[in-house]
Amino acid sequence: MVDATPESSGRRGRSARREARENRKVRWLPELTRGIPYLDIVSPEELDRIHDASCRILEEVGIEFRDDESIAIWKTAGADIDGYRVRIDRGQLMELISTAPETYTMHSRTDGHDITIGGRKTAFVPAYGAPFVLDMENKRRHATLDDFDNFAKIAQMEPAMHMAGGVLCEPMDIPVPHRHLEMTKSLLQYSDKPLMGSVTSRERAEQSLHMMGIVHGHDYVRDNTVSTSLANANSPLVWDQTMLDAVKVYAASNQAMLFSPFVLGGASTPASTIGAVAQLSAEALAGVAFMQLIRPGSPSVYGQWTATVAMNSGAPLAGTPEIDHINMLMGQLARRYKLPWRCSGGCSSSKLVDAQAGYESARNMYGVLMAGANFVLSTTGYLESALCQSYAKAMLDGEQMRMMIRLGSGVDMSELDPAMGAVREIEPGDHYLGTDHTLANFESAFFMPELMDGDSYEQWNVSGRIDANARGITMAKKVLAEYEEPKLPEETLAELNEFVARTRAETSEMVR
Amino acid sequence: MVDATPESSGRRGRSARREARENRKVRWLPELTRGIPYLDIVSPEELDRIHDASCRILEEVGIEFRDDESIAIWKTAGADIDGYRVRIDRGQLMELISTAPETYTMHSRTDGHDITIGGRKTAFVPAYGAPFVLDMENKRRHATLDDFDNFAKIAQMEPAMHMAGGVLCEPMDIPVPHRHLEMTKSLLQYSDKPLMGSVTSRERAEQSLHMMGIVHGHDYVRDNTVSTSLANANSPLVWDQTMLDAVKVYAASNQAMLFSPFVLGGASTPASTIGAVAQLSAEALAGVAFMQLIRPGSPSVYGQWTATVAMNSGAPLAGTPEIDHINMLMGQLARRYKLPWRCSGGCSSSKLVDAQAGYESARNMYGVLMAGANFVLSTTGYLESALCQSYAKAMLDGEQMRMMIRLGSGVDMSELDPAMGAVREIEPGDHYLGTDHTLANFESAFFMPELMDGDSYEQWNVSGRIDANARGITMAKKVLAEYEEPKLPEETLAELNEFVARTRAETSEMVR
Repeated sequence: MVDATPESSGRRGRSARREARENRKVRWLPELTRGIPYLDIVSPEELDRIHDASCRILEEVGIEFRDDESIAIWKTAGADIDGYRVRIDRGQLMELISTAPETYTMHSRTDGHDITIGGRKTAFVPAYGAPFVLDMENKRRHATLDDFDNFAKIAQMEPAMHMAGGVLCEPMDIPVPHRHLEMTKSLLQYSDKPLMGSVTSRERAEQSLHMMGIVHGHDYVRDNTVSTSLANANSPLVWDQTMLDAVKVYAASNQAMLFSPFVLGGASTPASTIGAVAQLSAEALAGVAFMQLIRPGSPSVYGQWTATVAMNSGAPLAGTPEIDHINMLMGQLARRYKLPWRCSGGCSSSKLVDAQAGYESARNMYGVLMAGANFVLSTTGYLESALCQSYAKAMLDGEQMRMMIRLGSGVDMSELDPAMGAVREIEPGDHYLGTDHTLANFESAFFMPELMDGDSYEQWNVSGRIDANARGITMAKKVLAEYEEPKLPEETLAELNEFVARTRAETSEMVR
Repeated sequence: MVDATPESSGRRGRSARREARENRKVRWLPELTRGIPYLDIVSPEELDRIHDASCRILEEVGIEFRDDESIAIWKTAGADIDGYRVRIDRGQLMELISTAPETYTMHSRTDGHDITIGGRKTAFVPAYGAPFVLDMENKRRHATLDDFDNFAKIAQMEPAMHMAGGVLCEPMDIPVPHRHLEMTKSLLQYSDKPLMGSVTSRERAEQSLHMMGIVHGHDYVRDNTVSTSLANANSPLVWDQTMLDAVKVYAASNQAMLFSPFVLGGASTPASTIGAVAQLSAEALAGVAFMQLIRPGSPSVYGQWTATVAMNSGAPLAGTPEIDHINMLMGQLARRYKLPWRCSGGCSSSKLVDAQAGYESARNMYGVLMAGANFVLSTTGYLESALCQSYAKAMLDGEQMRMMIRLGSGVDMSELDPAMGAVREIEPGDHYLGTDHTLANFESAFFMPELMDGDSYEQWNVSGRIDANARGITMAKKVLAEYEEPKLPEETLAELNEFVARTRAETSEMVR
């Protein structure tokens, strides 16, 4: 494996360029260190108004924590409690979120592959939760554990993926009570990248954490972050017991959590971009604040996932301008709060890997990059508004993320003087192909995608008229054939297998 | 026709929203008035370094104007002349470009449809120059005059297209010496939007201008801008006689020109983003300065079109991160120079309307919007790095431009208070679909694309599994069937026809 070191701010762009030159060899790219500005779309005063609206929601309307234990925790903290309704004043809210770290580091089991979430960093994470796959025969069917393993291997092999992922797809051939065990084992075995743990019950979160402990050491995972898991709010304005239980488990061990309402804009938010943001931000802030009550200083990520709804049909949409606006506003708020921020990247509502999938994913992801997200979930393979995971698209999107890293790294001013030498070397009307400067730089100067076909029509025609979807499938097969397992010590793998087998047996009565 | 008025800065977003609500009825959208910031990727000091490099190119290397008349003009102006090589010092350069207007207005033959180029405005213009079309039977073939007429009608019908365009495709069934006549007539007859004139010889420019005069009045077009035509530099560092002759004709009549090198980054520029920009900017500035010598104050647009080259294959690429960087730098320079700025939008190197076409076009266009281009050529239908024009993609891209207008308009803070009312109206866990606020806003809150399918898999499956390309073709047929001609007075059309017939007859000896 060839590792590329994170670039220093003084040499932005340069190491990204070196990495790209080694494109075909590099197996791991560090998270993006931003070398371009953020696109802040409102003034600080306008941002204050949105902040104020979120505070008023939490102070006046309140938010429900539908869990007795959580209510007790809020009561002890001095919040205003009415049944499950918690009203939090802005002083307490700001004090609580101030203990959440601005950045945190997730540890990999491979030295040098730790990644930082927050600040000027952006990390890319695979998609989450699809029950269907669009497979390598271009057939849509229920996902299986085999598919899950494959997507874990693909994430491991994609240099621009910074985590193994979480629910890479739903292995529908495994009973629900056993799924988290098989998924967590797959992620830990097939990837050395940080992972996402189960959040669907307290026990499952504990079991995920135990399995991380088998790999990293049980003592180690009590304080050191090796995972970031996903807590979705039940919008509007509800955190339910399942998620809160998972938060308690992970927070106690300093494992990071995402507090990100998963919403259909217009259905579970007001039919307004600004209104949606005021609500989403209130929900996310309340989640972060709750985690800080459990363990002050534990890594808590602010954020959201939003599809807008085509309000004539109820269909969830991706790549619409209001999603960009919401992302840009949430990013600006996150920086105001000095919190790491999560959203979603390569989203599409298309049913196949067609032009729609390209337009929507590219638009959505570009907006996310401009907005400056730190933790970008759903970057690869995402179709059908999260219901389907495509092998072909996973490959196409992975390459797009490599380009996003390059774009976000910014430009390298140190190129100017050598390039001016080349300008002086040739005559007007001549070309640069033979200059020393070109020979020295041609491999690194411009990104060369492997899956975007730049050939002439004639070349493309004689090469079999292959479209992007077919190229993606071919590449998925190639990557899976070339997959190299970052092998766990034999006894570790045995212990994982033993734990999974034992726990499956113990919970077999839950399986109908 | 429903017209929407340009929005004032105090109500950014709101009129864009109202327009979108009337999406299906609106036939004309004003040019975008930017309500979001620019993405400036270098510091003012770094920008000065690039400016200095461009000035040094023009002062020390010089640039060739391969035309005796132009050389005489530069000599009279006091530039340093050596054969065709012109060396221009930065003092003179800056003085010349300072007379070019920061914004200019192009007049439409329909009242209220004038458009402004420059400042915080962005106008979208169809693609230019493809010899091939991907037709409505999904067949790639040589373009014809029928295709040209169709694309003129499509541009007329697309609300987000601000010009009729120029060489919408190359009508290969018309002999070259007659093409500009037929194209100009088509644009003037089938569209009331401003157009691009011929630049392929002095005579053809004069004939284009004469035809504009038939429609707008010959006196009128001597001073009032009704067109913007395209002068491509012959990079590196050459302006040739053909383009310069066209510049002389249009400049004398105050018709706008684009001065935009059309380059393959790495072949006709140094293999460096920053180096390419230094050269491109020098070329564009020299062109603008030349036009100011012809007629001070005439509208001269700075800019460029760039594909990067896959230097392992020589293939031109679109949607790469370096194109974004080049666009962002050129935009930042244009604002420094207070010049309107042109680049290209929905570009793709794909051979068909597949995921690649979507990824590349969306990426490229998003970067252009972030960079703040004023005049965006090649926004619709563009495939094969400009060699092929697709009916389906023209429709898909048109819708994307409507979304770009919405995105670029920014957000509307006046939504906040009414939306907060809705938040207070419902209970946590409830939904918003029945609130008064939703009922009042559901049509306008979120953009509803017609060509992006948000349906469930099941709905999509029973509806015939239509992909984006097929939806685009269906929409092209629909729009052409619904096309309404903005009729010219009968005698004007007769005069145009008579001029074309007479000039074709006079030049028939040129046709082999």
